[in-house]
Amino acid sequence: MDLKDYVASIPGFPKEGIIFRDVTPMLQDPAAFKESIKQIADYAKDKNIDIVVGPEARGFLFGCPVAIEIGAGFVPVRKPGKLPRETVSKSYDLEYGSNTIEMHKDAIKKGQRVLIVDDLLATGGTVEAAIQLIEEMGGVVVGVAFVIELKDLKAADALRAKGYDVFTLLKY
Amino acid sequence: MDLKDYVASIPGFPKEGIIFRDVTPMLQDPAAFKESIKQIADYAKDKNIDIVVGPEARGFLFGCPVAIEIGAGFVPVRKPGKLPRETVSKSYDLEYGSNTIEMHKDAIKKGQRVLIVDDLLATGGTVEAAIQLIEEMGGVVVGVAFVIELKDLKAADALRAKGYDVFTLLKY
Repeated sequence: MDLKDYVASIPGFPKEGIIFRDVTPMLQDPAAFKESIKQIADYAKDKNIDIVVGPEARGFLFGCPVAIEIGAGFVPVRKPGKLPRETVSKSYDLEYGSNTIEMHKDAIKKGQRVLIVDDLLATGGTVEAAIQLIEEMGGVVVGVAFVIELKDLKAADALRAKGYDVFTLLKY
Repeated sequence: MDLKDYVASIPGFPKEGIIFRDVTPMLQDPAAFKESIKQIADYAKDKNIDIVVGPEARGFLFGCPVAIEIGAGFVPVRKPGKLPRETVSKSYDLEYGSNTIEMHKDAIKKGQRVLIVDDLLATGGTVEAAIQLIEEMGGVVVGVAFVIELKDLKAADALRAKGYDVFTLLKY
């Protein structure tokens, strides 16, 4: 099975000049969805993961099944104002403007081994902000997994240069 | 294991007079998260489900692992503007204002058996709108499952009166 057959490429979404890689066909197909989760779980299984962290909202789609599969807990990274208890937050720059993410302050315990899972690695802004929050809480990021990598943006190289273990299923 | 031990109750969030039921402690605990998914999967397993439908964003947290567990596909219900291909949409009234949900137009095939999964059943507005979209696409809603039911709002009774099979893990 070639999982690329289950990614729809939509030029001009959400804005001109961007080709959006849509994973909904992969989710919709039971065998393809299962295979994507299996490949991430296989990557993670010898890493002794305590917690899978996934950014809102598409990181939940893959991160939660992976957490169940490998027997880990799941912690959401959310947009501001969504988490009801005390949070820590981090802002990062976008091409135009900036973005802020939040996590519950007690989400990660000191020394816990963390795998970050998201659908797409583009510039890496979200994942770098998430790594900072996790490390400030005392967590150890032992892996970072993405379903899709936009390889021309070289974010995987940048993460590896900082010492992180990066796994991507599909490269575009 | 009493899953209620893994729900945090936060008075006054997101606004005064509301007690927010926060499932993040349940997600964070591997055994509790697994147990919640197992209970929903047990409810669903004899229903021959083709597709699990989950509303953004907390419906993804439980719906995706349930889909993997029972061997079904997953279809997201999203806020307007998030899905890149042709969509169908439905609006419904809230206490103040209204809300709109979208699904991809080809998300459900005629005759497919659908389970809807969400974290919380409050007034039932989102789930009723999702049911309408699924049925307009020709899907058959054979079950509706929630982690938490706010029972004073009687939305489960209203769904059952319309003939839907409703399962809720925890009642408040």
